[in-house]
Amino acid sequence: MPDIRRDPISNRWVIFAPDRVARPISGELLGLTEDTLELCPFCEGSESITPREILAYRNHGSRNEPGWRVRVVANKFPALHVEGQLDPEGVGLYDRTNGIGAHEVIIESPDHLTDFADLPDSHAGEVFLAARDRIRDLRGDVRLKVATLFKNRGSAAGASLTHTHSQLIATPFVPPDLRSELDAAEVYYAQRERCLFCDLLRQELRDGSRVVMETPDFVVFCPYASRFAFETWVMPKKHESRFENLAPMTTAGLGWLTRDLLRALNEVAGRPAYNFVLHSAPISGDELPSYHWHLEILPRIARAAGFEFGTGSYINTVLPEDAARSLAEAMTESASIG
Amino acid sequence: MPDIRRDPISNRWVIFAPDRVARPISGELLGLTEDTLELCPFCEGSESITPREILAYRNHGSRNEPGWRVRVVANKFPALHVEGQLDPEGVGLYDRTNGIGAHEVIIESPDHLTDFADLPDSHAGEVFLAARDRIRDLRGDVRLKVATLFKNRGSAAGASLTHTHSQLIATPFVPPDLRSELDAAEVYYAQRERCLFCDLLRQELRDGSRVVMETPDFVVFCPYASRFAFETWVMPKKHESRFENLAPMTTAGLGWLTRDLLRALNEVAGRPAYNFVLHSAPISGDELPSYHWHLEILPRIARAAGFEFGTGSYINTVLPEDAARSLAEAMTESASIG
Repeated sequence: MPDIRRDPISNRWVIFAPDRVARPISGELLGLTEDTLELCPFCEGSESITPREILAYRNHGSRNEPGWRVRVVANKFPALHVEGQLDPEGVGLYDRTNGIGAHEVIIESPDHLTDFADLPDSHAGEVFLAARDRIRDLRGDVRLKVATLFKNRGSAAGASLTHTHSQLIATPFVPPDLRSELDAAEVYYAQRERCLFCDLLRQELRDGSRVVMETPDFVVFCPYASRFAFETWVMPKKHESRFENLAPMTTAGLGWLTRDLLRALNEVAGRPAYNFVLHSAPISGDELPSYHWHLEILPRIARAAGFEFGTGSYINTVLPEDAARSLAEAMTESASIG
Repeated sequence: MPDIRRDPISNRWVIFAPDRVARPISGELLGLTEDTLELCPFCEGSESITPREILAYRNHGSRNEPGWRVRVVANKFPALHVEGQLDPEGVGLYDRTNGIGAHEVIIESPDHLTDFADLPDSHAGEVFLAARDRIRDLRGDVRLKVATLFKNRGSAAGASLTHTHSQLIATPFVPPDLRSELDAAEVYYAQRERCLFCDLLRQELRDGSRVVMETPDFVVFCPYASRFAFETWVMPKKHESRFENLAPMTTAGLGWLTRDLLRALNEVAGRPAYNFVLHSAPISGDELPSYHWHLEILPRIARAAGFEFGTGSYINTVLPEDAARSLAEAMTESASIG
């Protein structure tokens, strides 16, 4: 069973998962040639070698058979385990609990595509729908506080398998970065009775210099203090603290928009490694007038170094105003072609 | 002039330094063979191609000439500039200031060694002495709040030059990770009139399972909630909030101990990329009874991925108790040999 421990100085939670050492790495990422490649566990036809299927959208076939479009399975080398009772305790100055939680994989295509940017409309839309369905289900589990949807694309972003997929980790603790965001947003709301994110969106739309694209439902922009070159956030215009409350059609629209944005990023920055991470209010709590869910897309072009890991500050060589201009042009061009 | 911007949601500061795009990368890190390698700017004899010398410990020669053992120069592609007046302003919801600060490079050896672990006694001791001298000097600059000493070793840790060196960045803001540590330590002190770090050291020494080495002045241990496999902290036994107040001989001792620890790390983990980062109280403020300086050594064996960057939580596959046992064995063995 994994162990979850908290550092009392930084208030950081760390999940200890020794079993994850054994997880496989795609031959492609190791530079193997095609004939030495092993069977991809995420391709259609490999259903028997993945853990049990939790959810699938299908054209035909039944559970754990081919015929699916998007498929969710438990992670074979999970950081957290779903079975058991949460058993938190203090160890002198330290806090710990056993590693209860969920760790699921959303396989985004039955074909061996290697990037979300390459997904056809049908699949790009359904990935976020699958995440929404899973989070709504996990919300019933009182042991779990926060569900984090994220993607690692490319080995520099921490990916170990190339077949395009996202991951969902539900933790029995509120991660420190979300805790900080919730606290800052609450202080702002308490002073002004307005959502910090709604105000920020209004300011960005009025200014315009960092806006990549505006749709009826979303604004895509490069944040004023972007940590990474070409960092972008996708934020819903309508105030909502939780992603999983989004209407199904708007959820599909988020997928299409994200896919188009990643295509533009690939064009502008040469198919970089990237992460995306969904920031959403705790699944265990109430609706929050102060918090506003959003998706952060973090290209990993430069490596985070000692200054970044040591201070939580970042050095970025690309201004968000320049990044937004390039991305907006690339999105407009591909829209006028496609 | 670089720009420093603050994100109001995460309270994260980001330094925008477009000029750093142009900085060179060691041919060795790009996999070039020896005859295509360019001149290393940090080797003895290259003094004319580095920026001006700020400090050097010498056997012979004078300023910007060969004959030095350890040499500090301004970074040729600085994240921050030392000239000018600090000019902070609000931009609607955002905060910004011009990029005032110091960014210096401590060249740790005149010979082309590529790791702190390879330094002879004389140099290992003098690196931290040079950092101490520089921080004591920067303390006089009222524009600067915090000096961060750090090292990037290996390209996975963000190094762009192989010749062993550390960096010192002094910022006009308190970085968010240090802010969190200062706040947590102050809350603890306010409740108990005791330093959190002193209590933590006492608990670690009593427990012993995570202690790698104890000397008269320092304890080396793997922290209870280590983010990274084989993460270690070097902490002084005597309460002191600022590194730069350390006595010269103890400072040299810190260098020797760190060098021996890095040798053990190289043996146990196969010469991994790593960062080290000094955590010390703001240079602009008072002595703090609640804060306790220390050095964090962060091996970069696994890549930080979306979960880490998206949540501030970490997944680690190696328990600190196991890491401490291996490192302690490797340190004892090398001590009995050397």
